[in-house]
Amino acid sequence: MKMAIDAMGGDYAPEEIIKGAVTGARQNGVGVILVGPQDRIEQELAKYNHNSIDVSIVHTDEYLIEGEPAAYALRKKRNASILVAVKQVRDGKADAVLSMGPTGGVYSAALQVLGMVEGISRPMIGGPFLGYSPQSIIVDMGGNVDNRPDQLLDFAVVGTVYARKSLNILNPTVALLSNGKEEGKGNDVVKQAYDLFKKSGLNFVGNVEGSDLVAGSANVIVCDGFVGNCVVKFNEGLALKNMEWWRSKLAETMPLNKVDEIIEDYRQALYPPRSAGAGTLWGVNGVVCKNHGASRSQDIVATIEIAKRAVEMDLVNALKAELEVVRRRLNQTSLVNFTR
Amino acid sequence: MKMAIDAMGGDYAPEEIIKGAVTGARQNGVGVILVGPQDRIEQELAKYNHNSIDVSIVHTDEYLIEGEPAAYALRKKRNASILVAVKQVRDGKADAVLSMGPTGGVYSAALQVLGMVEGISRPMIGGPFLGYSPQSIIVDMGGNVDNRPDQLLDFAVVGTVYARKSLNILNPTVALLSNGKEEGKGNDVVKQAYDLFKKSGLNFVGNVEGSDLVAGSANVIVCDGFVGNCVVKFNEGLALKNMEWWRSKLAETMPLNKVDEIIEDYRQALYPPRSAGAGTLWGVNGVVCKNHGASRSQDIVATIEIAKRAVEMDLVNALKAELEVVRRRLNQTSLVNFTR
Repeated sequence: MKMAIDAMGGDYAPEEIIKGAVTGARQNGVGVILVGPQDRIEQELAKYNHNSIDVSIVHTDEYLIEGEPAAYALRKKRNASILVAVKQVRDGKADAVLSMGPTGGVYSAALQVLGMVEGISRPMIGGPFLGYSPQSIIVDMGGNVDNRPDQLLDFAVVGTVYARKSLNILNPTVALLSNGKEEGKGNDVVKQAYDLFKKSGLNFVGNVEGSDLVAGSANVIVCDGFVGNCVVKFNEGLALKNMEWWRSKLAETMPLNKVDEIIEDYRQALYPPRSAGAGTLWGVNGVVCKNHGASRSQDIVATIEIAKRAVEMDLVNALKAELEVVRRRLNQTSLVNFTR
Repeated sequence: MKMAIDAMGGDYAPEEIIKGAVTGARQNGVGVILVGPQDRIEQELAKYNHNSIDVSIVHTDEYLIEGEPAAYALRKKRNASILVAVKQVRDGKADAVLSMGPTGGVYSAALQVLGMVEGISRPMIGGPFLGYSPQSIIVDMGGNVDNRPDQLLDFAVVGTVYARKSLNILNPTVALLSNGKEEGKGNDVVKQAYDLFKKSGLNFVGNVEGSDLVAGSANVIVCDGFVGNCVVKFNEGLALKNMEWWRSKLAETMPLNKVDEIIEDYRQALYPPRSAGAGTLWGVNGVVCKNHGASRSQDIVATIEIAKRAVEMDLVNALKAELEVVRRRLNQTSLVNFTR
């Protein structure tokens, strides 16, 4: 198995990316294709022993810069590292592609080069995000905004497939995140989606509220990416703050090694175990993994592991097969036109 | 000072409402007007010593039931307790009105009977919601959904007034909650609001992300009530879960009285100090306070204190005065039409 890695994507590229790629390749027993300027990559590679692992370089001088409008930049930079990396998957040279670069760039490159699974209109990012509710997937959390009701249904269908495949839940419950549990609560899009969900044949249990994300009241909780992004980032900020508060509080009453031990337990309670599909762009016709821009080498290692599991589970084909079933059911009853 | 209290609003009405009203009246040195069925109120009052406090009853047999469509129900029930209670303020018999009843009912009654301060289109609920960022107000958190860009600007103006008046911040910074800090990030409404905010003369510092709610990166953080409601309820659920986790964790290593002490410190870190205006319907032409449906007597006491401070600070007139200033500035430069 080979992973194409955008060596120039991320705040600490290429140094941390290449460090993580070497470690991740060794730990996971996979090959890596590093995409970026040959000289800079070789310079970094020279720092590590990589004799026993399968590393190759695909040269390109162009790459995206954080903050530039991604779609526009990709039209100018036809050899941007992210585009070249994604092409490795399209051309069968790699099984998955990884980038820590700008989200918009990864989205656009995936969409342009690999395209979407038929019937899905946009890439989405989802997964469990809270350790207290490890059996709850939130989708979309990638900042996929201004979704139509039928796109929220896409999220629900894809989320159902991932819950089944990566969390081993036979008949995942599906809910809409709203500002109240009762039918009739919600903004316009959620209200319209409610009707669509009811008729979808999915295991729809109605609306849930923000606190239900903590309780894990449904396996697949669907929301517009604007809301999902706000909640997920709020949670990230709060987790760090909580750990900081407790670390300093506990240090008043117990030895530091004991503090570290308890904080580590807390960290594990807050963050869900890594599941296949977390951080992958769902709905894309290939395995594309994205981690945050501030990723360090250990994050690259983790992302390689996630990508490996997504490839092993054959998530893309599982999604296609499931969509076929849902689509057939929906077409029979003429409820949704999936062929937009 | 007198508070009109909807004795029939809330999951534990009228028992807990009346218990709280009696205690709150005594503690805060205010009078209370209890609105609801005379016999039921008298029956509850009989349980408490209320000789030294100013309690009166305004009788009505009608009240709203949780779950019924509020606006529709209020058309049928012209003597609903919430309507009658709000009328006490309109008629100068009370200085503020309090209800733990359905949010929609309180909104509609306030809007119908008291109306909005000129230039504001909808009631909003805001305030500090996280102890880690006590100088940060989020508005709207009341579930005021599908807002236009100019309504988000209303939130910003009103939030600025409240931050100035209730948090004593001279020139509060204002930000838009978005799915990224950069200009250009956001859903359509946020992007349009961004331009409006830039030209508003407010102390606008741009977009902030979910984690900035924790960091308190701006004094007034503006969002659609759908997003605000999801984040605030997520935070509520998470706070309870965190306290539960830590309580059981600490109990493994220390005596229970020590555990209680630390958990109480944590609770105080998580929840902001009560500020004037928290839980009041902002923008309404009068002081209307709302607390959650599950409120117990101690919540009623707290709400009475908040209402008292809002009256003392003369928040409604402060808002009118500030709006006049902002409006004059905006009209001069013809940037926003406040007279929609």
